[in-house]
Amino acid sequence: MIFMQSLSFKAVIDRHEKKITIEILDQTKLPHQEKWITIHDEIEMIEAIKSLRVRGAPLIGIAASFMIAKLSYTNLSKEKLLVIANELYEARPTAVNLMICVDRMKKIIQSSGNLIDEAIHIFQEDVALCQQIAEHGSSLIEDGDQILTHCNTGGLATAGIGTAIGILNHAHLCGKKFHVYIDETRPLLQGGRLTAWELNKLGIDCTLITDSMAAFLMSQGKINKAIVGSDRIAINGDFANKIGTYSVAVNCHYHQIPFIVAAPYTTIDFHCPSGRDIPIEERNGEEVRSTWAPKNTHVYNPAFDITPATLTTYWVLDTGIYNQKTITEATKF
Amino acid sequence: MIFMQSLSFKAVIDRHEKKITIEILDQTKLPHQEKWITIHDEIEMIEAIKSLRVRGAPLIGIAASFMIAKLSYTNLSKEKLLVIANELYEARPTAVNLMICVDRMKKIIQSSGNLIDEAIHIFQEDVALCQQIAEHGSSLIEDGDQILTHCNTGGLATAGIGTAIGILNHAHLCGKKFHVYIDETRPLLQGGRLTAWELNKLGIDCTLITDSMAAFLMSQGKINKAIVGSDRIAINGDFANKIGTYSVAVNCHYHQIPFIVAAPYTTIDFHCPSGRDIPIEERNGEEVRSTWAPKNTHVYNPAFDITPATLTTYWVLDTGIYNQKTITEATKF
Repeated sequence: MIFMQSLSFKAVIDRHEKKITIEILDQTKLPHQEKWITIHDEIEMIEAIKSLRVRGAPLIGIAASFMIAKLSYTNLSKEKLLVIANELYEARPTAVNLMICVDRMKKIIQSSGNLIDEAIHIFQEDVALCQQIAEHGSSLIEDGDQILTHCNTGGLATAGIGTAIGILNHAHLCGKKFHVYIDETRPLLQGGRLTAWELNKLGIDCTLITDSMAAFLMSQGKINKAIVGSDRIAINGDFANKIGTYSVAVNCHYHQIPFIVAAPYTTIDFHCPSGRDIPIEERNGEEVRSTWAPKNTHVYNPAFDITPATLTTYWVLDTGIYNQKTITEATKF
Repeated sequence: MIFMQSLSFKAVIDRHEKKITIEILDQTKLPHQEKWITIHDEIEMIEAIKSLRVRGAPLIGIAASFMIAKLSYTNLSKEKLLVIANELYEARPTAVNLMICVDRMKKIIQSSGNLIDEAIHIFQEDVALCQQIAEHGSSLIEDGDQILTHCNTGGLATAGIGTAIGILNHAHLCGKKFHVYIDETRPLLQGGRLTAWELNKLGIDCTLITDSMAAFLMSQGKINKAIVGSDRIAINGDFANKIGTYSVAVNCHYHQIPFIVAAPYTTIDFHCPSGRDIPIEERNGEEVRSTWAPKNTHVYNPAFDITPATLTTYWVLDTGIYNQKTITEATKF
């Protein structure tokens, strides 16, 4: 039996019984309920990815990989397995990690390789990538920093300690003293629900604000750094991340505050020339209308936005820290 | 009997019976419930102002004035009336209209003048000021415009047709074709609850977005103007408005989009040199935590922010349209 476990994902692999059990911590129920649910088949996994029960660019790639590995223990044909892999690939359109992971699994299907080994490898690799990002990135964190973050980029979003939050976690463990401002991240409140929960668990000093407050705090000198994750980095360094990230970047630029993005190489789309080429998921208007807006109100609900390389100060990847002059070294195919 | 009525405020004045009945449309219940409540005394009025049942910089000044007028029909001494006027004055700290209106009423108390006449005058003056703002400002609105607005600045916030929304209303009535993007305006959602409700009633084309989306829409060319109201304008043109306004201003500056503020002269604080001198109300953290964030999460909740004159393109006042070169003509005492 092999147990793979992260903060919000569990896979129990029984090679003897030819069985994999997948469980996820339902992130739509956090922070009030810590509810683990079993994912039985690809239909449940696709629903869990689309509804953000499992979320975070690295983690949805890993979850999809384990789903394909699990199906390899059934009697499905190679062709049927590839069809399901394609369905998982298309569950969400912006995070390239999902596509890269599924493509890796598809290659193994085609070459009749061991899908279980590959899923385990993808999981373990993400743990290592997070650690490398954290070690590089924590050199950018200094005592007394007041750091803005947006959305959730921690252990809930990866197999490891996270990307942007992984850096904060590592810096905290190294004894650095800093304060984090958390954008609540409307509409789905990954900041207010998930990052607040996670930073409290980690014992990192933090203050929750609404997204629109960040600029005012910058003008008051209350924020001196911003750090975010990414769902896809283009070759020129432009990147997609949760809606609202671009506004943070513009405000950092105006206030001359370093703006940092952290991601593993699995977030780089080596075929995507620029941010213009990244597809942006548009989600149901009900997420914005919620319970308070008039029912007939027209809504626009892009789930991501694009931050251009020109507004980015540092890219922290598993291979090191890059700036505007060096980022294209990291995105070379 | 005199009936004074706006979209969210009613006063029935019976000079014969020496009685004033004040009713407000409880704005905390909108848009789902249109519930008028009677305000019996100053304690209920202060609660209604603090809790935003009645809100909008011009309207809270008017509501407080009618409360003082109503009390003039009781047997209260001049001294007691002045004490209550001071309590109303302090109900909220940022909107100067409240203070200016209460100061006007206090002068009438001191000179033993007619408080009912003064309250009626304040109400009627605001209706006229809104109309003048709307007529000046609508010259800035063109066919095809895509206009961002923040918070609520319409008939719900004034005795008349509003300030920023008054301009949109007037332009719409003049037959101009444009589209409005509404920032939902967290934490209290005056955009998502009130402006969406009001623009739908007015038949103005609109789309609701979260506050953090505005910048991305600007980068996509989907917004070409922004218009907001104000709670206090300083002598140098800096102004306070609902939290999130400053972020809109920075983003307009970066995207070279005209940023317009609309307000009556009663919003100008002729004693306030600059934005630094405007007190910012900090409200209960529960407004941000709401039902979703962990209960123990630390929150910062400033209700307003300061936009500097340097980020403002036009000030639309009842006396006309001003720019960065001319605004200090309007703020001369």
